[in-house]
Amino acid sequence: MTYQIDFEPVGRRGNYPASQSLLEIARQLGVDLISICGGEGTCGRCKVKGLNGKASPITSAEREVFTPHELREGYRLACQTFPGSDIKVYVPPKSLSTPQRTQVEGLEIHARPNPLVYTYKIQSLPPSLSDPRADAARLLETLNQQYGLDCYSIDFSVLRDLSPNLRAWNWRARVSLRGGELVALSPQSSCQLGLAVDLGTTKVAGYLLDLQSGRTLASKGIMNPQIAYGEDVIGRIARTRESLADAKRMQELAVEALNQLAAELCAEVNAIPQEIVEAVVVGNTAMHHLLLRLPVQQLARAPYVPAVSDALDVKARDVGLDIAAGAYVHLLPNIAGFVGSDHVAMLLATEAWKAKEVVLALDIGTNTEIALVSKGEIASVSCASGPAFEGAHIKHGMRAAAGAIEHLRLVDDRLQYHTIAGTPPVGFCGSGILDTLAQLYLNGVLDKNGRMGEHARARTYEGQREFILISEEERDGAPAITITQHDVRQLQLAKGAIRTGIQALLQAKGHAEEEIKQVIIAGAFGSYIDVSSAVTIGMLPSLPLNRFRQVGNAAGTGARLALVSRNKRAEAQKIARRVRYIELASLPDFQRLFVQAMYLG
Amino acid sequence: MTYQIDFEPVGRRGNYPASQSLLEIARQLGVDLISICGGEGTCGRCKVKGLNGKASPITSAEREVFTPHELREGYRLACQTFPGSDIKVYVPPKSLSTPQRTQVEGLEIHARPNPLVYTYKIQSLPPSLSDPRADAARLLETLNQQYGLDCYSIDFSVLRDLSPNLRAWNWRARVSLRGGELVALSPQSSCQLGLAVDLGTTKVAGYLLDLQSGRTLASKGIMNPQIAYGEDVIGRIARTRESLADAKRMQELAVEALNQLAAELCAEVNAIPQEIVEAVVVGNTAMHHLLLRLPVQQLARAPYVPAVSDALDVKARDVGLDIAAGAYVHLLPNIAGFVGSDHVAMLLATEAWKAKEVVLALDIGTNTEIALVSKGEIASVSCASGPAFEGAHIKHGMRAAAGAIEHLRLVDDRLQYHTIAGTPPVGFCGSGILDTLAQLYLNGVLDKNGRMGEHARARTYEGQREFILISEEERDGAPAITITQHDVRQLQLAKGAIRTGIQALLQAKGHAEEEIKQVIIAGAFGSYIDVSSAVTIGMLPSLPLNRFRQVGNAAGTGARLALVSRNKRAEAQKIARRVRYIELASLPDFQRLFVQAMYLG
Repeated sequence: MTYQIDFEPVGRRGNYPASQSLLEIARQLGVDLISICGGEGTCGRCKVKGLNGKASPITSAEREVFTPHELREGYRLACQTFPGSDIKVYVPPKSLSTPQRTQVEGLEIHARPNPLVYTYKIQSLPPSLSDPRADAARLLETLNQQYGLDCYSIDFSVLRDLSPNLRAWNWRARVSLRGGELVALSPQSSCQLGLAVDLGTTKVAGYLLDLQSGRTLASKGIMNPQIAYGEDVIGRIARTRESLADAKRMQELAVEALNQLAAELCAEVNAIPQEIVEAVVVGNTAMHHLLLRLPVQQLARAPYVPAVSDALDVKARDVGLDIAAGAYVHLLPNIAGFVGSDHVAMLLATEAWKAKEVVLALDIGTNTEIALVSKGEIASVSCASGPAFEGAHIKHGMRAAAGAIEHLRLVDDRLQYHTIAGTPPVGFCGSGILDTLAQLYLNGVLDKNGRMGEHARARTYEGQREFILISEEERDGAPAITITQHDVRQLQLAKGAIRTGIQALLQAKGHAEEEIKQVIIAGAFGSYIDVSSAVTIGMLPSLPLNRFRQVGNAAGTGARLALVSRNKRAEAQKIARRVRYIELASLPDFQRLFVQAMYLG
Repeated sequence: MTYQIDFEPVGRRGNYPASQSLLEIARQLGVDLISICGGEGTCGRCKVKGLNGKASPITSAEREVFTPHELREGYRLACQTFPGSDIKVYVPPKSLSTPQRTQVEGLEIHARPNPLVYTYKIQSLPPSLSDPRADAARLLETLNQQYGLDCYSIDFSVLRDLSPNLRAWNWRARVSLRGGELVALSPQSSCQLGLAVDLGTTKVAGYLLDLQSGRTLASKGIMNPQIAYGEDVIGRIARTRESLADAKRMQELAVEALNQLAAELCAEVNAIPQEIVEAVVVGNTAMHHLLLRLPVQQLARAPYVPAVSDALDVKARDVGLDIAAGAYVHLLPNIAGFVGSDHVAMLLATEAWKAKEVVLALDIGTNTEIALVSKGEIASVSCASGPAFEGAHIKHGMRAAAGAIEHLRLVDDRLQYHTIAGTPPVGFCGSGILDTLAQLYLNGVLDKNGRMGEHARARTYEGQREFILISEEERDGAPAITITQHDVRQLQLAKGAIRTGIQALLQAKGHAEEEIKQVIIAGAFGSYIDVSSAVTIGMLPSLPLNRFRQVGNAAGTGARLALVSRNKRAEAQKIARRVRYIELASLPDFQRLFVQAMYLG
């Protein structure tokens, strides 16, 4: 007797006996559910939700992990659950190993579609000696008459192909209007797509939407190819100063990435990029400027001012983006040299800016932006947290790929961990690094100063203290996987930078930590971390865990909202105007705050 | 005793005795005044105007040539006039040999400057940690505050250089606004220039204007380099069908010509093309489309429709025109496939469209457009007159260059003629060709059908009748300069095409020839011809000569008007909407009209 087990939204299914747990079945189907306790029901990682069908009874281990509400909603631990019928299982992104997440997940968007671009089908009579109107005039007059519009402007690039196109399509077409301007002309069968992009320093997330319904049709994340010119924005800005050719090349790389994203997203839905009639891009100010080939030198020098902070509407062709001939790219407003439109988009998507209570919202990345919302005001800071949490400059740090330890617990001198794809460990990625730091601190291996003490797994190697996660023996003679004293210092600097920002905001607004009613954590890295580890090391304030909300790529969600709704664009403007930017470096007690924030715990 | 004689506007001067006529003095100064009677006072060509100073008394020859009004105005024949004091002499363009005219002369423009682009000087405080506004916001806020404006849009190309420029200029700048858009940012010392262009099939006329005063600072004519791809528009359109690369190259050639004109005009006034903040281009519909790289195939096939007929505002950079970063090119409206914006500009400049009486307005060129204004209506036709009057396909035809016969009279079997630069004759240019045809007809060498009869200078050579202008002997053995029967046929076709258009218009509007109160002749060729010759051969209707008005490059004047005045642009729109285009080929009695129009006389 076997049952059909169907894992969604990954879409893998197969037939299995009632004797296998959902965790075991998932493994066989290649669904990389996280589990670090080895199926004992103690780590609480392998959360899934039964959408229908019958299963084994709820266990005591599950009653420990879930609230009664969650149990009523159908949540289970996969390792504790055995099928009792055909069953459809929903796997939340958090339960999946990092690479199986798309890097683009975010909040669902719930905005009534009200896009800037609307589409109309038209059919006109062909010209004749008795009606020799110009092709453009014929098109516009037909359109205006048929729909009671008042459109008298056609984008120049659209004009260039209008005459042969109308003839090829037998005088039937679909036109896309943006305000009073005709920005695209296409066959009647074409779609009306929008592209939303979160252009990050490290990663680029793209979303393809149907502008009429507001639905997300496809989404995808790729690396930012500019990374070859520097891991962080300061490095890249320095390169533009050294070489004009590099500056130009960096812009090209960013645009090529966007064009690649557009092409791949369209391929998924059998469309072509020329059906994209509007794009929205968000990103930090440096990425924004580099994409548009705006000057960036002044961003890196006090007083760190952007070339432009207002929202922009730029012809896609002026940027090099290869979508519909006359389409625009809309760029949400920036706030300051190091607080960009991605921050605005995050506040827009999470609606944190509307909060009546005290809300802290962070977008953790190579650069971390933090906003504190209180009393109808928004104060924001920017922290140079660096790429340590992404594995850079950490001896055994690595990107989220097969063999990366992504979750870890230390029980006495015994390690429990989960590697991506379940393959033998080769290093650790961001969330694993954070867990390691927290576990070493909790187990007294690290003191408050971050100094590494004695432990069965600690040693001095090549003149430096280090803690052995996987020994040479366990790796069959390959070098041990360790975390070094130097690694710990790097991570302290990173977490200290973030905590300094939080404290500076609280101080500026006169709030105590406990007054924060909600902490919103956005960004790919922030979404995958174990919040309790982040609290343990003192990166985040010590608050009840239920006040934290991990929202995934909220900047990408904000971009999607701005894509489908002009009201949301107006809101973004409001947010940008309302934010008060605080320059951390100019605070008189910055040094004191930072030293304080470096302590663990 | 010598006097200083000063020829204006050519600006040549020298000291000469009272015994030399102004004609002799002009020759010595290199001012190429036309004279075909050899200074006998009979041809009436060497008209000048004494601006001040004393001269010899008016002769009876002059009383023959001038009206009493002209004599009171100071008009003289240079060959009859001897200086009696220092004297300043104004030389009207018509009295100058063709190459000494600029090809760009037209009516003076008298429009109150009301340009689309205005300029403002601003100075702002530099950014600081306490005032870290974005550079763009700082600039706009300073501008809006200082001048009470409401400008919130900056052209994208201007943005790209804004930050380093403001720093280099120490936060002082001059900004150019077009409506609510900032289209140029320049040092405070820069000018505010405008470029007007008449893009003809054969020639390109450019004008540099000061937008604030409306003054024309410089003007220049060059050849249209597209001529390598075909002499007329039909040839060039055919080339675009054969080869996409040719189409692209033709667009590039047109733009290069415009860029060259802009650079040369600016050099004359010590400016640079980046100081040009607005341009206006007029031309026939094919030139308009080729410049913008709009499709032209449909222009050459019935029903001959333009891709676009409305006025356009296109970013100069989208066309490839290298002027101020965010500047626009404004293109006046077209009327039909073969009646372009140059026709609109001509009607605008001459104000023919406002006439209460019956007015005929022609712009004679490779393609000739004709409008008949009557009862507040404008009817227009287009005639494929071809390049014969420009010397093409005529055995000894040539461009207006040294040695070209430009005026000619036949008295019995004696020829009187004037060559450009006074050098021995090598061929004849447009006005000379027209004179020759008229003189042969008047002297009975040609009959009404254009058949060449007997004459002392006529012969049959290589199987064809021809008339010898300059014999082999007179040319020391070089081939004789002749006009052949074939030449005559070509010219009949050309003049017949034009006359057909005139007759078709009269017929359509129900007017008799005599009702035409004014004939306006625009265009370089039309301005240099002897109107009586054109009437003699029947190219133009037989009306009193004082009803004809030769206005030079009126299309160029119209472009200049549209450049400095938004009211004039609105007028151009009105004209374009009011014109009723008549397609000659679709007239039922086109053949009959054309056969009739081919007759001489």
